[in-house]
Amino acid sequence: MPWYQLDDPHDPKLDELARQYNLHPLHIEDARSEDESVKVDSGNLYTFAVLKPVYLKPDPDAPTEQMPTFTTIDIFAGKDFLITVVDPVCPATTEALERARRDGDGEHPARLLYLILDTIVDRYFSAIDHFDDRIDALEDAIFDSPSPEILAQVFAIKRELIGLRRVLVNTRDACLHLQRDPNTIIDSEHQLYVRDTYDHVARLLDSVETQRDLLNNSLDIYLTSVSNRTNEVMKVLTVLGTIALPAIAISGIYGMNLKGLPFEESPHGALFVGFLTIMCTVLLLLVLRRMRWF
Amino acid sequence: MPWYQLDDPHDPKLDELARQYNLHPLHIEDARSEDESVKVDSGNLYTFAVLKPVYLKPDPDAPTEQMPTFTTIDIFAGKDFLITVVDPVCPATTEALERARRDGDGEHPARLLYLILDTIVDRYFSAIDHFDDRIDALEDAIFDSPSPEILAQVFAIKRELIGLRRVLVNTRDACLHLQRDPNTIIDSEHQLYVRDTYDHVARLLDSVETQRDLLNNSLDIYLTSVSNRTNEVMKVLTVLGTIALPAIAISGIYGMNLKGLPFEESPHGALFVGFLTIMCTVLLLLVLRRMRWF
Amino acid sequence: MPWYQLDDPHDPKLDELARQYNLHPLHIEDARSEDESVKVDSGNLYTFAVLKPVYLKPDPDAPTEQMPTFTTIDIFAGKDFLITVVDPVCPATTEALERARRDGDGEHPARLLYLILDTIVDRYFSAIDHFDDRIDALEDAIFDSPSPEILAQVFAIKRELIGLRRVLVNTRDACLHLQRDPNTIIDSEHQLYVRDTYDHVARLLDSVETQRDLLNNSLDIYLTSVSNRTNEVMKVLTVLGTIALPAIAISGIYGMNLKGLPFEESPHGALFVGFLTIMCTVLLLLVLRRMRWF
Amino acid sequence: MPWYQLDDPHDPKLDELARQYNLHPLHIEDARSEDESVKVDSGNLYTFAVLKPVYLKPDPDAPTEQMPTFTTIDIFAGKDFLITVVDPVCPATTEALERARRDGDGEHPARLLYLILDTIVDRYFSAIDHFDDRIDALEDAIFDSPSPEILAQVFAIKRELIGLRRVLVNTRDACLHLQRDPNTIIDSEHQLYVRDTYDHVARLLDSVETQRDLLNNSLDIYLTSVSNRTNEVMKVLTVLGTIALPAIAISGIYGMNLKGLPFEESPHGALFVGFLTIMCTVLLLLVLRRMRWF
Amino acid sequence: MPWYQLDDPHDPKLDELARQYNLHPLHIEDARSEDESVKVDSGNLYTFAVLKPVYLKPDPDAPTEQMPTFTTIDIFAGKDFLITVVDPVCPATTEALERARRDGDGEHPARLLYLILDTIVDRYFSAIDHFDDRIDALEDAIFDSPSPEILAQVFAIKRELIGLRRVLVNTRDACLHLQRDPNTIIDSEHQLYVRDTYDHVARLLDSVETQRDLLNNSLDIYLTSVSNRTNEVMKVLTVLGTIALPAIAISGIYGMNLKGLPFEESPHGALFVGFLTIMCTVLLLLVLRRMRWF
Repeated sequence: MPWYQLDDPHDPKLDELARQYNLHPLHIEDARSEDESVKVDSGNLYTFAVLKPVYLKPDPDAPTEQMPTFTTIDIFAGKDFLITVVDPVCPATTEALERARRDGDGEHPARLLYLILDTIVDRYFSAIDHFDDRIDALEDAIFDSPSPEILAQVFAIKRELIGLRRVLVNTRDACLHLQRDPNTIIDSEHQLYVRDTYDHVARLLDSVETQRDLLNNSLDIYLTSVSNRTNEVMKVLTVLGTIALPAIAISGIYGMNLKGLPFEESPHGALFVGFLTIMCTVLLLLVLRRMRWF
Repeated sequence: MPWYQLDDPHDPKLDELARQYNLHPLHIEDARSEDESVKVDSGNLYTFAVLKPVYLKPDPDAPTEQMPTFTTIDIFAGKDFLITVVDPVCPATTEALERARRDGDGEHPARLLYLILDTIVDRYFSAIDHFDDRIDALEDAIFDSPSPEILAQVFAIKRELIGLRRVLVNTRDACLHLQRDPNTIIDSEHQLYVRDTYDHVARLLDSVETQRDLLNNSLDIYLTSVSNRTNEVMKVLTVLGTIALPAIAISGIYGMNLKGLPFEESPHGALFVGFLTIMCTVLLLLVLRRMRWF
Repeated sequence: MPWYQLDDPHDPKLDELARQYNLHPLHIEDARSEDESVKVDSGNLYTFAVLKPVYLKPDPDAPTEQMPTFTTIDIFAGKDFLITVVDPVCPATTEALERARRDGDGEHPARLLYLILDTIVDRYFSAIDHFDDRIDALEDAIFDSPSPEILAQVFAIKRELIGLRRVLVNTRDACLHLQRDPNTIIDSEHQLYVRDTYDHVARLLDSVETQRDLLNNSLDIYLTSVSNRTNEVMKVLTVLGTIALPAIAISGIYGMNLKGLPFEESPHGALFVGFLTIMCTVLLLLVLRRMRWF
Repeated sequence: MPWYQLDDPHDPKLDELARQYNLHPLHIEDARSEDESVKVDSGNLYTFAVLKPVYLKPDPDAPTEQMPTFTTIDIFAGKDFLITVVDPVCPATTEALERARRDGDGEHPARLLYLILDTIVDRYFSAIDHFDDRIDALEDAIFDSPSPEILAQVFAIKRELIGLRRVLVNTRDACLHLQRDPNTIIDSEHQLYVRDTYDHVARLLDSVETQRDLLNNSLDIYLTSVSNRTNEVMKVLTVLGTIALPAIAISGIYGMNLKGLPFEESPHGALFVGFLTIMCTVLLLLVLRRMRWF
Repeated sequence: MPWYQLDDPHDPKLDELARQYNLHPLHIEDARSEDESVKVDSGNLYTFAVLKPVYLKPDPDAPTEQMPTFTTIDIFAGKDFLITVVDPVCPATTEALERARRDGDGEHPARLLYLILDTIVDRYFSAIDHFDDRIDALEDAIFDSPSPEILAQVFAIKRELIGLRRVLVNTRDACLHLQRDPNTIIDSEHQLYVRDTYDHVARLLDSVETQRDLLNNSLDIYLTSVSNRTNEVMKVLTVLGTIALPAIAISGIYGMNLKGLPFEESPHGALFVGFLTIMCTVLLLLVLRRMRWF
């Protein structure tokens, strides 16, 4: 059975194969478009699948971190041929194709298609583990020193999870399609295997939900800590104002160019007035203390 | 098989056709009403469908942006006739009718109805892509410079998504009705095709959910950034007040027309008191620094 | 077939009918209670239904607005009799009974019961349209001039929607019961019709969900606009304080009754000190500008 | 058929019955434990049910209010015996047992078990009505005068609803178990009745959801009113500061012991400076007015 | 039937058994990995299960509290052998193995596997009870004295619940797999038992949801109390400022070195001005009182 492996969807060889095996022009167009999403489309001649292998590459914004990146693999699996188009080459696709070659060589395209799908889904678990580690680190950081930078990372991971979830949901639908559609080249034996893969994707989706819960928890922690701090700042402001108020008001009164103020002529006036000011301040502080502000 | 194509629901030709083909007066009324929603209604003579093609037109509020706009197409598909009422004409309806004419001419109305429905659903993907692009741009803008204007756009897109979701939910129900209702003119072969269209609508709805998640993420980013800024403003206010407080309180005290203040008669009084003021300020700033305010 | 139409549940005629047709005392009690909820209860002699027609009446709190109001209709539908108890009379019940009389006179009670149910459900669409209009108006108002009064209306509509949703959910359950329960007097032909009504209720519930989404969107707009304004107020307060601080602190210092202050004896002292004050203010404003506060 | 009615689970009579009818020690332990949850457990000899009757008792925190309180009833229903253990006695259990004795005496234990279950579920409706009344009152209070005390009541009711929901969910599962498990002593006739009870519990759960929606609505009203008030307070603070600022700054400047200030020697200096101050204040207030602060 | 019990997954005995019973290398690798998650994998030779027993151990962060901790048990259950690998030994695993040995010795591995699974699930109830107690205590504490420390505990429990939920969801899936998969060594009799265990896990998951509701309720209580307090602090700040403002402004005016101020030369000037100041303060306080600020 021939297996054609192309590294570039714009390879003219693909047009040739399209003519030879009656590939649908829309599928060729899909394979060459920039932003395909995961899907499976099955006719009575062959099954066309777009899958999204994932691999970790360094995050350009934070060089010490890695981030999951998706590439694309297009598969045309007919009854007696297999065409795979890889764009661009990444560790996950290489692994998937090698496993298919090793475990399924010479066998039916259905088996090869299943092996590639299964390897790609297996790789998603490492992406989930990666997020687990980063979320753990963020949670500790938010408890120790909440800062807008850490918050930006929380939001960035939330976004990446939304993207991962989308790929997973589409992959789950693709698995369902492969199991149910009478047209797919997947035979009944491999439909059982695909059901297993479907279970894995369902478990991955559950993990993504758990991680979103954890991130929302972190976000709540951050927000309440900001609320608490604003509250603290307001209290300090009020306490400072309270300490200064009697001094400012009383000294203002004695600064007036008027006659008839008490102690005005006394040689110990400053002492008396100073004592009065301190008494007022202490009184105000006692009131604030009863209101449990510090 | 006759296909009547009307561009205006108020065309008297429609009344004539209604008499000829026994169209239900309620359906004629629906076709002429201003705000129909997507639906399918099937009797034993014909199936009546209201669909909502979408196209992008410039947004009157933001001329550089486009916004998805819905028009209406009413279809009466009988066993041996097809009536389409288009109001108003838009690129999406034109495309749908052309494809139906090209691929389904001379065939059964069921095929024509399916082709129109499928083309209309395909156009929804471009609306989704449009929102993807705008949401991407908004996310970047919210991180770089959160402003109420950008927020207004977030809310505007959320609203448009609610509208799009409603059309999609109704279209999904219409697809379900076409598949299941024994009365519809859709035969079993085309029911399979409609199921495919149903899957597309389900995928579109999932994309809308993802986009709403992304917008909520943006909204959270905006709100926490406002909280953070309010917190920062409060701190600056408090630090400013702290710097000024000793100067104001001490200068107030020395401004009193009283006798008995220390250094009152000293020729270097201002120096001593200035030094005292600076010491108090520095002390307060040290306290605030220990509380990690700047 | 006799049809007894009562306008008052406390009419002694009802007791007489109860004896004649073996109506269950609990059902009579239900018909006479003040706050029944929508339900269907079917025995082997007759089916008892409580329905809630809706009509628009002027809102006592806002005379220019209308608000959906529910009344009650109790129906006892036996194999060969129909009793309807209406309390109080409203346009929606009148319409429902007239349509039943016109389209179903002399026919089986199952048809009459279905016609009444269907007309009542149809009237819910006008309530939904009414909310659509009010929500549209509120959204515009919240963007133009958010005020607590508009917010109160948002919350009022949210509450009315919760009430409408409850009636709709119960009506949906009642439809389900009429379709499935082997005891109901609804025959298989009318079960198909009731399924249609069930679909309408499901669509109404979906509209209610959409409207709640729109109201939550409006609420978010309001809350972020309050957050933004609080942030603005704080900034203005801080900027004002900043402008005044140097004047207050420096003039305080020069107001002290001390010797040794610079320029104290200079004839242009006020000029120098004034210049110093303005410089300090400008410096502070530049700092705030760099922090992008205005 | 013997019916043993015990008022105390620690009655040694229970041990005697356990020996006589082969009751499982775990069930006896359950009946004697302090915090059982609602459940049904069925062996081939008998069905063991734990139910939670509800009754209203005065709330210790708010003597004018009542609050729903749960008690426990344990039922061992065998083929030819019934044991009920009541702890402690409450109006709801008394009513349930009386109805079972009146309507089901001498009959099969399945009927007695169903009658007790049905009466207990009926009593939940009064608890729901009670919450309806309290939530109505709270909503009015929150609109008229939002206060932390009313908020505490909102949270208290939310908590009680969470507890009620838990009991209802478990009761629903118990009903499902009685319908489906082939081991239960419930015969097919009574399984139909239990399905009716199941529907009631489902409706009760829907009411609880509606009430939680209403409470969340109230909570949102409260929170936005606090936000609004904070915003108002900030504005008043800023307006007050604005009114005082020119007076403080200008009077500070003229309080300096310096030479060269304008009007310093003029006999109408105070008049000129006073006029200047008032002009500055009015100017600032006009600026604030343009920003729509009052 | 041989039962091999290993306490260390790195025991070379495991490799020996793997050779003897054809255990899959991936399962051996799983048993030796650090972070396995709960799962069941069944081939036609044996069923491999990873379970997570829970036990309470003292919380290192809060020595007076306990926290649920998970360990791991790996089970290889063949037709005629059982291998259990425990890492590390904990009270819950010991209990599970003892019960299996006592109640199922000499029997079929299916029974032993079920007994271990059932005991482990039973232990989860104590973890739920533990959380119930802690949440109760936290709720009381949040009402009495809301503090960031209590809030940190709320978030910590939320996190632990997310972890527990994840284990429960995986355990539920494992139960489903044991019931449905035709390959598992669980026979039809024990599939019924496993369904019972599945119901327990479903009930546990429902309890976790209830607890999360309660924690969210607590969180809302905390957040509104912070909002309320911020509002109170702002009011106190404004009232304090209001009391001081007239004194500061008027005394500033009379501190000016200008001529022409009223009462300037009067011997009772201080009295008049003092009276004027008090009047202004009282007036402002009356205005604030009308705005219901204290």
